[in-house]
Amino acid sequence: MNNSRLRLVGLWILATTLAVLSAAAGHPEEILPKVRDYRQAHAAEILAELAALLRLPNLAADLDDIRRNAEALRAMMERRGIRTELLPTAGGRPVVYGELLVPGATTTLLFYGHYDGQPVEPSAWHSPPFEPTLRAGAGPTAEVIPLPGPGQPVGNEWRLYARSAADDKSPLVALLAALDALRAQGVEPRVNLKFLFEGEEEAGSPHLEEFIPRERQRLAADLLIIADGPVHQSDRPTVFFGARGIMTLTLTVYGPSEPLHSGHYGNWAPNPAQRLAALLATMEDDDGRVTLAGFYDDVEPLSEREREALAAIPPVEDSLEQRYAIARPEGRGRRLAELIALPSLNIRGLRSGWVGEQARTLVPATATAELDVRLVKGNDHRRMYEKILAHIRAQGWTVFDREPTLEERRQHARVVRVEKHGGYNAVRTPMDLPIAQQLIAAVERGTGEPLVKLPTLGGSGPLHYFEELGIPSAGVPIVNFDNHQHAPDENLRLGHFFRGIDIFASLLWWED
Amino acid sequence: MNNSRLRLVGLWILATTLAVLSAAAGHPEEILPKVRDYRQAHAAEILAELAALLRLPNLAADLDDIRRNAEALRAMMERRGIRTELLPTAGGRPVVYGELLVPGATTTLLFYGHYDGQPVEPSAWHSPPFEPTLRAGAGPTAEVIPLPGPGQPVGNEWRLYARSAADDKSPLVALLAALDALRAQGVEPRVNLKFLFEGEEEAGSPHLEEFIPRERQRLAADLLIIADGPVHQSDRPTVFFGARGIMTLTLTVYGPSEPLHSGHYGNWAPNPAQRLAALLATMEDDDGRVTLAGFYDDVEPLSEREREALAAIPPVEDSLEQRYAIARPEGRGRRLAELIALPSLNIRGLRSGWVGEQARTLVPATATAELDVRLVKGNDHRRMYEKILAHIRAQGWTVFDREPTLEERRQHARVVRVEKHGGYNAVRTPMDLPIAQQLIAAVERGTGEPLVKLPTLGGSGPLHYFEELGIPSAGVPIVNFDNHQHAPDENLRLGHFFRGIDIFASLLWWED
Repeated sequence: MNNSRLRLVGLWILATTLAVLSAAAGHPEEILPKVRDYRQAHAAEILAELAALLRLPNLAADLDDIRRNAEALRAMMERRGIRTELLPTAGGRPVVYGELLVPGATTTLLFYGHYDGQPVEPSAWHSPPFEPTLRAGAGPTAEVIPLPGPGQPVGNEWRLYARSAADDKSPLVALLAALDALRAQGVEPRVNLKFLFEGEEEAGSPHLEEFIPRERQRLAADLLIIADGPVHQSDRPTVFFGARGIMTLTLTVYGPSEPLHSGHYGNWAPNPAQRLAALLATMEDDDGRVTLAGFYDDVEPLSEREREALAAIPPVEDSLEQRYAIARPEGRGRRLAELIALPSLNIRGLRSGWVGEQARTLVPATATAELDVRLVKGNDHRRMYEKILAHIRAQGWTVFDREPTLEERRQHARVVRVEKHGGYNAVRTPMDLPIAQQLIAAVERGTGEPLVKLPTLGGSGPLHYFEELGIPSAGVPIVNFDNHQHAPDENLRLGHFFRGIDIFASLLWWED
Repeated sequence: MNNSRLRLVGLWILATTLAVLSAAAGHPEEILPKVRDYRQAHAAEILAELAALLRLPNLAADLDDIRRNAEALRAMMERRGIRTELLPTAGGRPVVYGELLVPGATTTLLFYGHYDGQPVEPSAWHSPPFEPTLRAGAGPTAEVIPLPGPGQPVGNEWRLYARSAADDKSPLVALLAALDALRAQGVEPRVNLKFLFEGEEEAGSPHLEEFIPRERQRLAADLLIIADGPVHQSDRPTVFFGARGIMTLTLTVYGPSEPLHSGHYGNWAPNPAQRLAALLATMEDDDGRVTLAGFYDDVEPLSEREREALAAIPPVEDSLEQRYAIARPEGRGRRLAELIALPSLNIRGLRSGWVGEQARTLVPATATAELDVRLVKGNDHRRMYEKILAHIRAQGWTVFDREPTLEERRQHARVVRVEKHGGYNAVRTPMDLPIAQQLIAAVERGTGEPLVKLPTLGGSGPLHYFEELGIPSAGVPIVNFDNHQHAPDENLRLGHFFRGIDIFASLLWWED
């Protein structure tokens, strides 16, 4: 090739590059299809990055593991030029904080996610929870397939099984992949990006209360976007405009000071399992309506726009009843989305004595129930706690917030210990806000599909700390709803994961 | 020594032997103090034999372990010239059967005991359940002391900790030691002895029903003596004239087909823990009175003599309330012994979801309760089971005796599986029978202390199979009541154990 031809080629390259840059500065309709092309071509690599992160155990109780996850995330973010720090919290589980400021951008989006996971009981899983296992479909009978090699295609129906595959590591990886997809076209996001990835969400976010106000300057943003939770059961792209609050309680009821032979003492020694059952039975009626005095009192009604959004949600109840073998749901015929707009009370665990092969004929010494209470806009977790205490006392119980002494147990006929673990309130961002409308438009552009707009997520998130900083919040979940979140065999449907990259790319390519 | 002196010594030996035999043929007042001397002098050896037996794990579920226990017992009995066989049962857990027939004896006593033990949860024990651990007193804080060497003295307050130390290996060893104590005086028992040591009592004796009628000829006896159970809480020597029947049930209540996130589905998906609590709450009132229709209907009233015996029992309720930190016992002020003369219903286990650190915010898929129902004379376990089923159905439940299919769960709003595990009826031997009076006299002679005569034991035993053979039954428990039977830290107070040897020796030295 001679010099003049070389020069021509150079000019041609320059011209092409300028054309690309020009397109990049252009319309989402031009950018977003190329995002799709990119993530299809690089599906295997994106998946490999997710799998590597999932191999790190991430139970909030294990600080060393948590630290390893935080370090891995930092490395992933720094590789992309995101200025990243591990910000300490009092619990020893750092917040992974990242910033990518874009010259000229006028909007700042703060993405929230978490890298810790729920506890696991490996024996209940069909593949080890921290060995990401790819299957050709849903369920343990679906064929296990190897992770694809670079450049190999990936099936939409494939599922990746691992703890946190859905909740909440895949959204973090999807966000970074969306950034890669834009940059592969030579463009940068059109918003300033901030990332706050927490390490103790599944432990109830006990230190955000202290962390967020302390870091208010760093966290300043126009919108907090929760990259967590499943899409609606209709599988449509979903935006939610709040999350419920939550409070968890442990109730321990006391019987004799040690387990006693049921033949010699049964129906003389008070049975704590029986007493606990009687207490729990007073808390709900047969339709699952909570019967605690004032439980539904403080609920702030939905706005006109929220009611409309709710009415537009595709019906899913019949198919859920079929899927989960439910003959008659609780809630007196109300739709699931309506129920989610109310507080709920759930018994998440019961323990007393032994069952199965270990069962033995004893009057147990104690019986324990674990409760979770979901809160909606208008509820306050401290007030709700007081209502529950008042209800328990009204049933004749003496309530302790610590282990009662034997002397106290000798004095009071019905003794219960009630422990409250953390708790925070709900947030509901008005859908009318301009930024809320911009968000809806961006997510719609990302997929071209009709959205489900939820006034609140059923799940909980500590959004109120941001609300107090004046930052409105909304959620953009991407994962399949049948992901076994919190349960054994947690899994991610890959079609959802990759659609999530499209959605996040559209958010990064924000239009004011 | 010359021949004449040798002859003199020979004559002296002969005379002494005759004197001993003459004493041996004489009154219990002469024999029994010597039994006491013997067991004091040989306390360490007797204890060592017990400890060796306790080192053999004996959970009924482990057939190899059970077999090892049976073989060990056979060897112990054969060493004493008891003709011993391991008689097979369909469950694979042999009955250790022994006979020692005494020429000229007119009465045959059949001793029943069992060599299997309740399940253990080693983490809840303060010393390993199958490493017998001697302590200078009661409770895990009492000093651990080594097992004494031969000839060394043994303290009455010492306790031996191990599974089955009280229930029921020590009575078996005490019986054999009583035989040794008589023979050390050159005498044999004055009754024919038969021994039936079972290997699945803690599993509900599922094969005695078939075994006992099949072996009716071998088992023929004038009285069955249960060498099992604790003495009365007053610590007085005790005879009981029956035992309660028992039936155990497992109730499994179904929620969604898999655990569901409580935020997305709580108070819509039926919560099985809540439903189970509501069901259990209908079964008893606040005073522990069972509210199942007809639960107390079939109870056969106590006889005059039984009521007298009951009235003579020393009061123990106050001290038990103090000991077990019970502010208000169930039973509306009735005495414990009166309550034991009634059927009882006990929740012995509850399981749903997870508790403690493992708790996670899910609607559980199932909830399980383990129940035991104790039966008294007049009750029938099959009839009682039907009453319970009728009660459950009356609360609107669809009952299955097997795992319901998903389709069945889709069809019925409240689905419960009720599994009945075995079950047998109570026996109460009339105290007026001459042989009952002889037994009382023999136990009184054994210790010189006033007896507690219980119309029935609170615990259960499959005595009805013997009743059907026309063999009356009674129980002679020897172990301390605070033995943690069935629970962690099961233990035997040595003073009780050695008094038990005196009592058993008195039974072997039976007076018609």
